[in-house]
Amino acid sequence: MTAPPQGVASQVDVSRAVREALSEYTTARTHAARRYGPEFVQLWAIASQKMLGGKFVRPILLVEVASAFGRERGQVRHELDDGRADRAVIDAAAAVELLHFAFVLHDDVIDGDLVRRGQPNLVGAVVAKHPSQRRAGSRFLPNSDRRSTAMHWGTSSAILMGDLVLSGVYQSFAMLDVPATTLRRLFDLLGHTIDETVAGEFADVGLGDGCLEPDLATILEMSANKTATYTFEFPLRIAAILSGADRGVEESLAQAGRHLGLAFQLQDDLLSVFGDPHRHGKDANSDLREGKQTALIAYARMTNAWTEVEPLLGRADLTAAEADNVRSLLDACGARAFVEGLIEDSLASFRDVCNDAGAGIPAEVRSVLVETATQLASRQS
Amino acid sequence: MTAPPQGVASQVDVSRAVREALSEYTTARTHAARRYGPEFVQLWAIASQKMLGGKFVRPILLVEVASAFGRERGQVRHELDDGRADRAVIDAAAAVELLHFAFVLHDDVIDGDLVRRGQPNLVGAVVAKHPSQRRAGSRFLPNSDRRSTAMHWGTSSAILMGDLVLSGVYQSFAMLDVPATTLRRLFDLLGHTIDETVAGEFADVGLGDGCLEPDLATILEMSANKTATYTFEFPLRIAAILSGADRGVEESLAQAGRHLGLAFQLQDDLLSVFGDPHRHGKDANSDLREGKQTALIAYARMTNAWTEVEPLLGRADLTAAEADNVRSLLDACGARAFVEGLIEDSLASFRDVCNDAGAGIPAEVRSVLVETATQLASRQS
Repeated sequence: MTAPPQGVASQVDVSRAVREALSEYTTARTHAARRYGPEFVQLWAIASQKMLGGKFVRPILLVEVASAFGRERGQVRHELDDGRADRAVIDAAAAVELLHFAFVLHDDVIDGDLVRRGQPNLVGAVVAKHPSQRRAGSRFLPNSDRRSTAMHWGTSSAILMGDLVLSGVYQSFAMLDVPATTLRRLFDLLGHTIDETVAGEFADVGLGDGCLEPDLATILEMSANKTATYTFEFPLRIAAILSGADRGVEESLAQAGRHLGLAFQLQDDLLSVFGDPHRHGKDANSDLREGKQTALIAYARMTNAWTEVEPLLGRADLTAAEADNVRSLLDACGARAFVEGLIEDSLASFRDVCNDAGAGIPAEVRSVLVETATQLASRQS
Repeated sequence: MTAPPQGVASQVDVSRAVREALSEYTTARTHAARRYGPEFVQLWAIASQKMLGGKFVRPILLVEVASAFGRERGQVRHELDDGRADRAVIDAAAAVELLHFAFVLHDDVIDGDLVRRGQPNLVGAVVAKHPSQRRAGSRFLPNSDRRSTAMHWGTSSAILMGDLVLSGVYQSFAMLDVPATTLRRLFDLLGHTIDETVAGEFADVGLGDGCLEPDLATILEMSANKTATYTFEFPLRIAAILSGADRGVEESLAQAGRHLGLAFQLQDDLLSVFGDPHRHGKDANSDLREGKQTALIAYARMTNAWTEVEPLLGRADLTAAEADNVRSLLDACGARAFVEGLIEDSLASFRDVCNDAGAGIPAEVRSVLVETATQLASRQS
């Protein structure tokens, strides 16, 4: 194991720089919103708070890999410690976080979620501000159901804010101070990333709504498209493009990112069912109650345990004892071990790409990737 | 009245050229969707059909005004009859239609609509394709309500397709064959247009959900932001930018567009309540049943008729006789005449801008605008 090339201090610095760039954006937008009334200002204020509360996994990966490319060339640009960060790298990293936020907003509407990481999400925060939730009721709503009106206000706000932020992603990329040919490459990449992520989300919805066969191959492809592409492949490719790496290196990074992303998503599925809910911040049994189609479930479907698992999945009224029973069944039938094996396989494929001399990934960049994989493998949330 | 500078033949030609450009786009996208499975191909096929079924009001306005600028300079480019259409103008016009479609998709989700112009909209078409609507049921949905699952599939599809199309709008603009400074102006305009339209839609939702005071000023501003900006100001400004008009002329066109847009929206409100439903294709009483906050209603609220109107508005079970009663009340209290007066005022302001020599709108462009206003004033749907 290579020693971490970037200490915690550096991640904190990157995180601060990205937060500052995002904060500049949201402050300007909240200010501009005044033209459209106090409710629109309030919406932007809520969005700003939610946007700045993330862990910045994707922007940190982008900046660290770009920094590693810089070190490789013996340059100190991208080194935040020196206060000489490349502005384009930070701005692109902030734009990647914006894209994540846009996806989260629409994802939460589609999933009907009001909570994220133990806090009200944007929908939940807007619902709480609805007149019907604050006082006896609105005098302009004589014939409406108050609760469902508040929900409509919340979900509509999230759809519309998602549109604003998605537009903001393109605007942010368009304003990067890079040559026209670089911008053209970034735009192509952004378009592809949005298309693939939405296709993955569409498959996820289709699986949940009974429109797609929930076989393992479909579920793994859905996971890769929905999460791995924009979480790993996208920031890694941007780092390569902004660092002037050649196309071959960019492709190798993308491949490494896809393996890492699949491991990440599979681990997420495992943690949601078997992890400590106090640490991952979700409802302990939400995946089981939703009947979410994951690799765990796809494997269980092929075993004798399925006759016992199936009637319990997707039940909103699943008790804690029943959920524990499902967990035991998923463990006993081998589903858990199977998914743990898939994660191992993905990480092995990831290391193969990193260590393949022909892949052309520079040593400094490889170190950052390997350290990222180590952090992911040991995470509890 | 100036004679129409463009006959019906020309509008048909423009419409065909825009449809071809859009068709090229949707064909490529539907083809690329195969990578993500047959359901995704089906979604693109449905979207293509809906997208190509529009009236192309906005692209036609853009191309006709750009053509008028060309004639003004004694050039024949933009003249489709000559087969020498400026590709950038047609592509920008197609992108404007894409933006309209993206807004329509999310608008329909927010409004819970399944029908548009008398046909199933994208949500309705996707719902009809859900397994639960086609056969006895899906074997993967043991614990779900089939009807609500089909609706979830439909609305989620529309949210996601809206995101894809919004991204497609930016990609389309980015690919226009224009100088970098022109592209920068178009991007700024696109960002502003999306922001303002979404702010207007947000206000519309807020009015419906009892979060904004439904006074006349708020309703008129909402209408202008939600519809006039992207329907008139946006295509007119693009035509000016692509034609190399100076900023002053662009601003004058924008101002004329806002007046025209407000007249258009107010007329829409009138037609929805008093027009022939067979011609405008909507449910005859949907605005009344939804309790939609329009200028008509804002005026009625200030009259003695309000005590009779209020209890009938926003009732999903409003009968035809009750709707007729509301119409009589809105007529008798002066609301209808008031809104007709507002339309007259907007059209007068529009003509003032057109005829103001200081506004700098060239004669050929003015003719197209005046003809457009005439067509709008006499429309029945």
